[in-house]
Parts: sequence; C-alpha cells; structure tokens
Amino acid sequence: MEKISVKAARLAEAIGKQVLVRGWIRTRRDSKGGFSFIELNDGSSFASLQIVADGSLSNYESEVKHLTAGSSIAVEGEVKASGGRGQATEVLATKLTLLGGADPETYPLQKKQHSLEKLREWAHLRPRTNTFGAVTRVRNCVSRSIHNFFQEDGFLYIHTPIITASDCEGAGAMFRVTTLDLEKLPRDGSKINHALDFFGKPAYLTVSGQLEGEIFACSLGKVYTFGPTFRAENSNTSRHLSEFWMVEPEVAFNELTDNMDLAEQFLKRIFKDALEQCPEDMAFFNEHYDKTTIETLQKIVVTDFRRLPYTEAVEILEKSGEKFEFPVKWGIDLQSEHERYLTEKHFQGPVILYDYPRTLKPFYMRVNDDDKTVRAMDVLVPKVGEIIGGSQREERLDVLTQRMGEQHLNPDDYWWYLDLRRFGTVPHAGFGLGLERAVQFITGMANIRDVIPFPRTPGSAEF
Amino acid sequence: MEKISVKAARLAEAIGKQVLVRGWIRTRRDSKGGFSFIELNDGSSFASLQIVADGSLSNYESEVKHLTAGSSIAVEGEVKASGGRGQATEVLATKLTLLGGADPETYPLQKKQHSLEKLREWAHLRPRTNTFGAVTRVRNCVSRSIHNFFQEDGFLYIHTPIITASDCEGAGAMFRVTTLDLEKLPRDGSKINHALDFFGKPAYLTVSGQLEGEIFACSLGKVYTFGPTFRAENSNTSRHLSEFWMVEPEVAFNELTDNMDLAEQFLKRIFKDALEQCPEDMAFFNEHYDKTTIETLQKIVVTDFRRLPYTEAVEILEKSGEKFEFPVKWGIDLQSEHERYLTEKHFQGPVILYDYPRTLKPFYMRVNDDDKTVRAMDVLVPKVGEIIGGSQREERLDVLTQRMGEQHLNPDDYWWYLDLRRFGTVPHAGFGLGLERAVQFITGMANIRDVIPFPRTPGSAEF
Repeated sequence: MEKISVKAARLAEAIGKQVLVRGWIRTRRDSKGGFSFIELNDGSSFASLQIVADGSLSNYESEVKHLTAGSSIAVEGEVKASGGRGQATEVLATKLTLLGGADPETYPLQKKQHSLEKLREWAHLRPRTNTFGAVTRVRNCVSRSIHNFFQEDGFLYIHTPIITASDCEGAGAMFRVTTLDLEKLPRDGSKINHALDFFGKPAYLTVSGQLEGEIFACSLGKVYTFGPTFRAENSNTSRHLSEFWMVEPEVAFNELTDNMDLAEQFLKRIFKDALEQCPEDMAFFNEHYDKTTIETLQKIVVTDFRRLPYTEAVEILEKSGEKFEFPVKWGIDLQSEHERYLTEKHFQGPVILYDYPRTLKPFYMRVNDDDKTVRAMDVLVPKVGEIIGGSQREERLDVLTQRMGEQHLNPDDYWWYLDLRRFGTVPHAGFGLGLERAVQFITGMANIRDVIPFPRTPGSAEF
Repeated sequence: MEKISVKAARLAEAIGKQVLVRGWIRTRRDSKGGFSFIELNDGSSFASLQIVADGSLSNYESEVKHLTAGSSIAVEGEVKASGGRGQATEVLATKLTLLGGADPETYPLQKKQHSLEKLREWAHLRPRTNTFGAVTRVRNCVSRSIHNFFQEDGFLYIHTPIITASDCEGAGAMFRVTTLDLEKLPRDGSKINHALDFFGKPAYLTVSGQLEGEIFACSLGKVYTFGPTFRAENSNTSRHLSEFWMVEPEVAFNELTDNMDLAEQFLKRIFKDALEQCPEDMAFFNEHYDKTTIETLQKIVVTDFRRLPYTEAVEILEKSGEKFEFPVKWGIDLQSEHERYLTEKHFQGPVILYDYPRTLKPFYMRVNDDDKTVRAMDVLVPKVGEIIGGSQREERLDVLTQRMGEQHLNPDDYWWYLDLRRFGTVPHAGFGLGLERAVQFITGMANIRDVIPFPRTPGSAEF
C-alpha cells in the first residue's frame, strides 16, 4: 500500500497500484447503480481525484452516502483507468475512512460561489477553494523561481534586518516597534525617554533592504534579499498592502544596462516557470479571471523589452494626441495612464524607462553626466504599469554627499553607507520587485489582498 | 574578453582564457624582480585569486605599487597555470584599473586580526573578512538547501503574516507595532483608544507562523514557512536574538513518527549540503573555530537518530550518577546540561526525545492515551542541545478546547484555529528550526550574533 498524492494518483503511470490517498471532499454524487463518485483534493494539484465508492464498502450506507463537502477522508484502493472526461485515472475504493466531518449547516464553503470579499473573512478556509489553492501554488512557484534564478547564477541570499533603528530610509511611512508600556510611558522631563525602549532608541519596521543589500554587494559581489517589507501609509487600494514580500538583487560592478538585462531575464524566467510548472492553475485563471493572461505572459517571454529614456517617453506622450487626466511635460512623475499608454497602445509590450529627472528620484541613484537625470529605471508592463524599480547607485562619495544635501538628509545618519564609498567603492546596481504585484500580474487577480495568505491593510490584521 | 568570477578563474579549465576580473584587494606584496602579487577576492569563493602585475603595466610605478588592502580593482589579463601552493591558476595582468582606493590610515580592516566583538561594530565591513564571507556563503547554502528539500518533496512555501493582532500565540514576549504618536496618544476617557491605531486594535510582531501554517496544511497538505520571527525577551546570551529566521513545516496526515522522520531527513540534508557545497568555508571553520565540526556533521549524516520517550530519558539521567546543577525527576523541563549529557556522553549523537509531560507543553500538542503526556518531540544535537522542536497537533475539537481551558486561554480568540477541527479535521504535525541555531551548529561559531548579517538584541539595532 503506497501513500500517494492526488497529483501522483492522477497520472497514468499509477494505474494498477494499490494506494492510500487522503484529502478533503469537494463533491459527492450518488449514482442510481448503488455507488458514489467523490471528488477528492489534497492541494497537490488543481484537479481533484475521482474516487469510486460502491455498496461493497461496509460503511457505504451508514457513512459514504452521507459524506459532505469539506469532510476529510482516507481511501484505500486500486488506481484504475478512467473513462471520465479530463481524467486519466480514478481510484476504486476498497476501504474508506471518515477522518473529520463538516456539518453542511455550518460549513461556510458550500457549493454556491462566494465573493472574493466574503472569502477574505474566511481566510482560514479559503485555501480550500479552487481560486486560493491555485493562487497558493502559483505564489509558491514564483517564490521558488526567484530563488532558483539567483542561486543558479551564484547570487547569495541575504537576510537584511526587519527591525531598523534608522528612520532615514525615506521610502515610505514606517511602523514603530516598541516594548514600552503605552499606558505608563517612561519620561525624561516632559519628553518620552526612548532610551528605555527595547533597542535603546526608537525602532521601526523596514521599508526596504536595499541599503543593507548594498553592504553585501560591496563585499561579496552578487546578492539578493527576499523578505517582508512594510508601509504604514493609509492606502486602501487594490494594489497596496501594509505588509508585502519584496525581492531586491544588488550586484557589484553592474551598470544600468547590466541591471536592465538582469531585470528582463529575471521577469521572463518567473513568467516562463509559472506557465510551464502551473499549467492547470494558469488555465483556471485564464478562464475565470483574465482571459488574456496566458497570451500576455507567453508574448512577454519571447519579446525583447523596449528600452527608452524618460525624455523620449515624454516626447512620445506629448505627440500622442491622447487626452490625459494629468498633462505631460518633462519633469513630471509619470502616472498610471501614461505608463499604460506606452505599454498597451504605443509599444504593446513591456518597456524599460530610464534616465529619470534627478528631482524625482532618491539620493542614492547615480547622477548622469548631463547633471539633470539619474540612472534610474522602471520596468513597465501592460495592465499593471510599474512592476520593477531600480537604479545604478551613486558610487562617488562627493556626488552622493551633495545629493544628500539637496534632499536635506544628514550624512551622519548614513555613516556606514558612505563608508562603502570611502573604502574600495565600486559601480553597482540593483532593483526591487514586489512579489504580490508579480503574482497579481501573472494570475490576473484584480485585488492584491487575494494573492497573499493573510493581507494586512489599514484597519485589518486578522488571523 | 570574458567577465569571470574569482571562483571561475581559479579553475584549471580557465587556463588560456583572456578575462576581466573585478574585486577587492586582500593583500599585495612586491617582489624584488619588479612585479607584484595581488590577492583578489570577489565573494564568489573563500579563496582569493592571485594577480601577477608587472612593470610592463603603464601604471605599475604610479598606482599598482601603492595599492592597499580594501581597494577595488578591475584586471584584464590571461589565466595561466600557477606554481603557487593551493592554487591551480593565476592571472597575468595586461591592464589594471583602480576603481576605489581605501586609505590605510582610516580603513578599519587592516591586516591585523580583529576580535569578533569589534567586527560587530563594523557590520557594514565585516562581510569583507574571511570569517563573515564564509558565514554568508554557508548561511546562503543552508537557506537554499531548506527550500530545495521541501520543494523537491512537493511542499508549498507559505508566507505567514509578520504583523499579527492575536496576542495569544503564547510562545514568548512580543513587540508592539504601532503608528500612534506616543507623545499624543488618543484617549477614550482615561484609557488609550487602541481603535485609532493603524490596524484598529493592538498589533504585534509574530513569534511563530505555526498556527497560520496549520491553516494551509489543513487545506493543501504539505507546507512550510521560512521567515523572520521575533522575541521581545531581554535575553543577552550567545544563543538568543530578538529577530531571527525560522523554518516551520506542517504536514497534514503526518503523525509523530512521520514528523520525526521528516526532521531527521531534513537536518541530514542541510548538513550534507553544507559539507558538499561549501568545502572551503567548512575547512576554514574547522581549522579556526571548531576543530570537530566537520567530523561531527559527517557522523550525524550517516547515523540514525536515537529516539526515546522523555520518560526513558529521565530514567537514564537519574541512573547516570552525574551531578547535575538542576536535579532530575519526571515532570521537569530538561536543562541544557541534561540534553548535553544525553547527546554527548550517553548516546554520543543526535537524540529525538518525545512524549513530554502535558504540563510542560503548549495547548496545541496532541494528548496521548495515557492522558499524562503529549506528542511533543525535541531533536537534540551535541554541543547545542535542542535544535528542533515540534509535535503532532491536537486535531480533536473537544480535547483541544479542554486543553485551552487548562491553560486559561479563551477559545473565542482562537475561533479560526478551532474551525480547522470543526470542518474536515485531520491528524497533522510539524516542527520549527531556527536558521541561526542551525548555522551556528554547522559553522561552530560561538556567538549567534556572528551568523546573522545585522543582529538585533536588547539595546542594539544598528545598521
């Protein structure tokens, strides 16, 4: 008796084997011939396994005929060739054991379709649905693909800190982390005495591992981070989370063109792996959530990403004749409508914009010889807009210090970051990809809260 | 001209190639014959690459002869066979460009040995040392090995939440996460109005992803988490961090024996990969930090872990004739001295203890038929003691509810956890491994602060 997954039992190779399969019942229907068909799912694949349970089972009348959706069972039997549509095999049960029932009066996931909003309230049960099983497998595939892409190329995975005492990262509003008793805050005169907090000063949740990633790139060459990051902004949109996972590669000796090459290869690899390794899940998303997602990904995988400077993009937008809500001129931050015009109408594919106005971008991006632009790059894709943001970093100590001055930052707060430019400085570049944005793009799910197990958003940190 | 890593240039296959290598200078020594040897490291391997730079370089007198440790350079030249000890190749430079100097008057990492304590203050530069380069590569190897082990076996990687509004996990003291202005706390009468905090109620940093992991195991079968976890305890020891990375597999239908099998295979795989994939780094640790580490790991990889019930372990300890600081009797929590006696003296190898007294363990561990013990397991290894803790989980709703009562927990706080037992409950089991403890064990590093990039401990959250 071989313990086997639903995925393995569905393969033609399994025919003839005596197996034990376990999982949760999706549906049961009884035939007039005195037997029942049970659809059994265990998460190993999108498709369920058909179990044929007949009257020869000792508990057929007493249990099998009363099995309900959501119940867990163990089935012993032989894998047989199946005449059913969409399945090569089925299991003819010789023994069926009910492990745990699910009262149809109270089990929330009944056969009727539930809204995605409603399922968020049942985040502890939604992985049992087709949609969230598929999201979980695709998200897993993308995560694995991210690690494989970098590991195969000799990158080192670095765990940059989650708690940071620098409130100077500047990428967004931060959450405070504290062990102070808020009802009895220690005071030094009239002010709170932060020296008595856990870390001896105020501490926050990180908004990016980039600066710490640069430390490792500037000593060990090729590195990447992949961990949670946080934004305390009060954004209630379908594209924002307060807690999300970010991937940030950083490479010594890379210049902006190398960075674009890396980002393009990286995205293509992730999309390709999702298409190849999750075909059933992707077919489901394509059918039920976004009829164009497979075609879009297939096209991106084989298309060279168009690369053009911000300045040229602005010219294209100005000449487009389109009526934009936000008028275009050199120096503005491009809006979603502009990005979508470029990727969906003008180029009909992914675009990498680079060399943005220095006033739009953070202090650490390398200043170009024109003194007006910096070596920033954004990768834009149809429907979603920006999916990757990155830059070549400023490796010249004097220019970096000057840029910090322009942005009213105190160099003392960045002493260690500046040290990287004092001692053996090197050109280097990197970028960031939000995992959830990538999974959203691949699956076509409209709301980012539906591509993370337990979304954290303003007012909500359930489960 | 091929861009090549130090690791690749050190291979005999590279001989004859025209290459470009870039990295940081470890040492330079000049020969009387009018040439210099430079040891170049780029993080791709423990060993450095020997560069031979001679008087034919146009900048030999002006620059090469003044190059200092920590400077970054780019070298073009041919890979030649080397007569030097411990190296198959060297590069004869035809062009050498200084990218960034490092003033020997101010560069902290001079040739003399620095203490590990001192290097913690220079955490932005310590990855440039032999020790922290090796730690980073081994840590990366272990992290990759963790993912590979689970992915190859069909586990799904789940990102359980970092911020949680349940203060009921019970595994340790928690950090509060807040956006309230501590100087102007909103009040509702005399009490702080937590409803105005970001998530509408008090929120904390997670101490474990287990309970959320169980949600996914109880719908998709085999899952694991791998992410940061937090402890707000004021522990200043060589084995505690306030922020560390934890791996937590959780498997539906697994019972305690399956859980032990999984833990044993898992540890062996990690140790084997470190030995096989980081031989130079491991040789370094074995020589400089722990003369027994390679031998210990090699032995563990081929030894069956001894498994015995807590009750038998107590009997062995009672009969041992050893004088323990903490006297042994049934019902006590085993101390480090007891664990070390078992692994180092009595069994001389790893031990899995199981079936602990119910009073010692959390509510979610499955109660045995004897009603006195629960299906807990701890994997103990020599020198370190407990490296893995886990259990079969209580899948029976009535027993679980009763256990919560014993431990004065409110079932309403765990409504979703109890739902997993209400609807299609299944036997399941899992365990947790602290990444840093594992890396500490493998490398033999004495202090856990030296196996994580930027340690967070009471009073310290630098970088």
